Amino acid sequence: MPKPGRSVLDLFFRPKSIAVVGASRSTHKVGRIVYDNLSKAFGGPVYPVNPQAETIAGRVCYPSVGTIPEPPELAVIATPAPTVPGIIEEASKAGCKAAIILSSGFSEIGRKGLEEDIIKAKGKMRILGPNIVGILDTHSGIDTIFNPKHRQARPQKGKISFISQSGALGAAVLDWAAMEGVGISKFISIGNRIDVDEVDVLDGLEHDPGTRAIAIYIEGTHRGREFYEKLRETSKKKPVIVIKAGRTAAGAKAVMSHTASLAGEAEIWHGMLEQAGCLEAKEIDELFDLAKALSEQPPPKVASREATSAIQVITNGGGFGVMCSDEILEQGMALARLSPKTVRAIRAFRGIPAHASIGNPIDLTGDSTADMYEAAITAALSDRGVDAAIIIVLFQVPAIETRVVDVIRQAAERFGKPIVVCSTGGEFAQVHRKLLEKAGIPTYPTPYRTVRAMSALVKYAKIRKRK
Amino acid sequence: MPKPGRSVLDLFFRPKSIAVVGASRSTHKVGRIVYDNLSKAFGGPVYPVNPQAETIAGRVCYPSVGTIPEPPELAVIATPAPTVPGIIEEASKAGCKAAIILSSGFSEIGRKGLEEDIIKAKGKMRILGPNIVGILDTHSGIDTIFNPKHRQARPQKGKISFISQSGALGAAVLDWAAMEGVGISKFISIGNRIDVDEVDVLDGLEHDPGTRAIAIYIEGTHRGREFYEKLRETSKKKPVIVIKAGRTAAGAKAVMSHTASLAGEAEIWHGMLEQAGCLEAKEIDELFDLAKALSEQPPPKVASREATSAIQVITNGGGFGVMCSDEILEQGMALARLSPKTVRAIRAFRGIPAHASIGNPIDLTGDSTADMYEAAITAALSDRGVDAAIIIVLFQVPAIETRVVDVIRQAAERFGKPIVVCSTGGEFAQVHRKLLEKAGIPTYPTPYRTVRAMSALVKYAKIRKRK
Repeated sequence: MPKPGRSVLDLFFRPKSIAVVGASRSTHKVGRIVYDNLSKAFGGPVYPVNPQAETIAGRVCYPSVGTIPEPPELAVIATPAPTVPGIIEEASKAGCKAAIILSSGFSEIGRKGLEEDIIKAKGKMRILGPNIVGILDTHSGIDTIFNPKHRQARPQKGKISFISQSGALGAAVLDWAAMEGVGISKFISIGNRIDVDEVDVLDGLEHDPGTRAIAIYIEGTHRGREFYEKLRETSKKKPVIVIKAGRTAAGAKAVMSHTASLAGEAEIWHGMLEQAGCLEAKEIDELFDLAKALSEQPPPKVASREATSAIQVITNGGGFGVMCSDEILEQGMALARLSPKTVRAIRAFRGIPAHASIGNPIDLTGDSTADMYEAAITAALSDRGVDAAIIIVLFQVPAIETRVVDVIRQAAERFGKPIVVCSTGGEFAQVHRKLLEKAGIPTYPTPYRTVRAMSALVKYAKIRKRK
Repeated sequence: MPKPGRSVLDLFFRPKSIAVVGASRSTHKVGRIVYDNLSKAFGGPVYPVNPQAETIAGRVCYPSVGTIPEPPELAVIATPAPTVPGIIEEASKAGCKAAIILSSGFSEIGRKGLEEDIIKAKGKMRILGPNIVGILDTHSGIDTIFNPKHRQARPQKGKISFISQSGALGAAVLDWAAMEGVGISKFISIGNRIDVDEVDVLDGLEHDPGTRAIAIYIEGTHRGREFYEKLRETSKKKPVIVIKAGRTAAGAKAVMSHTASLAGEAEIWHGMLEQAGCLEAKEIDELFDLAKALSEQPPPKVASREATSAIQVITNGGGFGVMCSDEILEQGMALARLSPKTVRAIRAFRGIPAHASIGNPIDLTGDSTADMYEAAITAALSDRGVDAAIIIVLFQVPAIETRVVDVIRQAAERFGKPIVVCSTGGEFAQVHRKLLEKAGIPTYPTPYRTVRAMSALVKYAKIRKRK
């Protein structure tokens, strides 16, 4: 375990006290939303700062950071861009250690000078931003996200940390994650990153014991070499999944007016991420589909970097079995071959219908029950020819019971082989999907996404073979 | 408009009366679930048939189809496979016109003989099945799906009809569609299709005024030439989107034990579908993503079969704008170029923030309001260089109002150019997604899926250029 206090992230996630500069009397303003959220969830003192208010939400309001009797360790700033350098200067002089600048209107619209002024004014302070939506730690209660909670929910506690260069994208994704039940550990919006950047944040997450997998949305970097080195080092310890946006010329142009960074060549990025041992995602759902699997399930056995894993499919719907088989081969994995002994063991189980098909896939048909799944899963995962299992459970059929969730969880624990589940459907299926995910079994709605998650586990197993 | 009564589908979707053979006193049995659903929703008489019961749900139960005083036009059969040929023979003699055989245990497990017996016994009757999950018509109330409604919801009325060779897959998808708010017109599970097959059903849907787009899940066909001809003819009138499963050798093997059909070569299918003017999907969500767009939005202008359309992106989140730009180019479309006049018109609108970026994408930033969207959308869609628009609306930002839904709907009506929306997020975003979709604006959670839907509209515009 790394010693606490060593990471730059601690300045932002473990301050003793916080000032919110730009806290407002009107409850829908950015500074006020942040103030309200922090004063509810954060354990230490939170000071509102606004020269135009004497009190905010019934608490004494300070005209400036310098007038707070005990200087806050962290300042969260939500005032118009031109006022920010002055505020930073005062905060630095007052002994403030770090600032989060939420305000926009800097280099992304050509005002590079304002950012240089901040750098000159900051002294030893560390700065996150500007032009960010905030940061979130589901464990400590630090939440500086400026979107109101009724519009953007906060996700539950989890093991995935998420770095986003785009604030709006980060916020939309957190909102989606909250609804989907995807757990998040820390979220950091890095925006124009004039000081603390992707390299620093990644370093912090590398040493963060609460982070099991790291998801990154990035448009470009100013520190290519260091970023590569840090990705390489981190991915030896935990899986890192990256979306690189701005792959095309037009996308790269859009990046310039978004976070004012150079998008770089798509092929260079692609090669760099591969070399660094990262998994590349193209899409938001892919980013979290992969992070979910990699943070919950062990990588499967692979004989070598050139080999692949043998996957067994167990289903109660023939069509889904066919689609998963197609995908497993198309995504470069192998279909396991059950030994005759395993086939006999499954056939011998009372109740397995005569029209069930015992091969790969094992199709238990619409007459499936939790008992049949138990027999099939136990026999298949005991088979030395099976490295991992994709289990399809369609909860629409009349006889399947909720107990199948326990059956799958227990098999995952007992055999230590990775399991991912495919389950499509409405409310009844969703309830079971969430039960499965609470039990640490990543569950996806389509064959493609399920197999893609399994493929990521196989890829990560190979990455770990590199050294 | 085609004359009603001409299609074989009418035998199944517009019978005057129905017998449910295998209706049971126990409420969780397949035959009973079907009987209960039909007797609630279907307008005409529904007769339970079971030699072991005198009454079912308080209604007189008949020992066999032949003993029903007025012969039913349609028989739904849910009895063990070996009993089916005899039941069909009696139903045919009694004057029954059609039967839906839900039972499994036929050629999919090697019992080809039982199917031959049915064919010999059926006389002039038309048969759907065996080994199917049922059929559904959201408009007429015909629902022979054997899964209980608390496990598998039924979707709302809509314009998409869905043919599935896999019953369980069909059921899972309907359940998912119900939750997602995807509207369905007719659903037909075709299973082992010993009589009425994909060609007949497609012919029926071609002439069905309630069907605006057709989605098909298929594993194989016995009538390659006729199926191709029918796909070709149908796709001239309405979009047809097809998933062909069993693409790989292993998938094809799984198909044999699932619906006992020959999967055929992936390349042959791919070429056949392309030639026939169908859109091919690889995944369930893709199938309905495309069907949603194609059933609701007009195809955009394309100059020729070789040309593409110019897409304008309007966003309030920079990262999503970058991702959509990348995808538009990677998926083979062009980014529109706004005329200087259009750019001036948008800039002139009071309230557009100085840090907004007016190009492609138009980025209204997190300060966006419905008024700003209205100004940007109106100006962009008035521009002759814009063939279609992808509108990204992130509902997490503080100032965006619900009125943006009306703004988008009105623009779609006024300009007749296709619009698809990208919106990611939790409950608040979902409410707005559903409002947009009720207004006929297809809405997707990720850039990739949004652009893929737009790409389908462009492809369909080109298909229509063929003749």
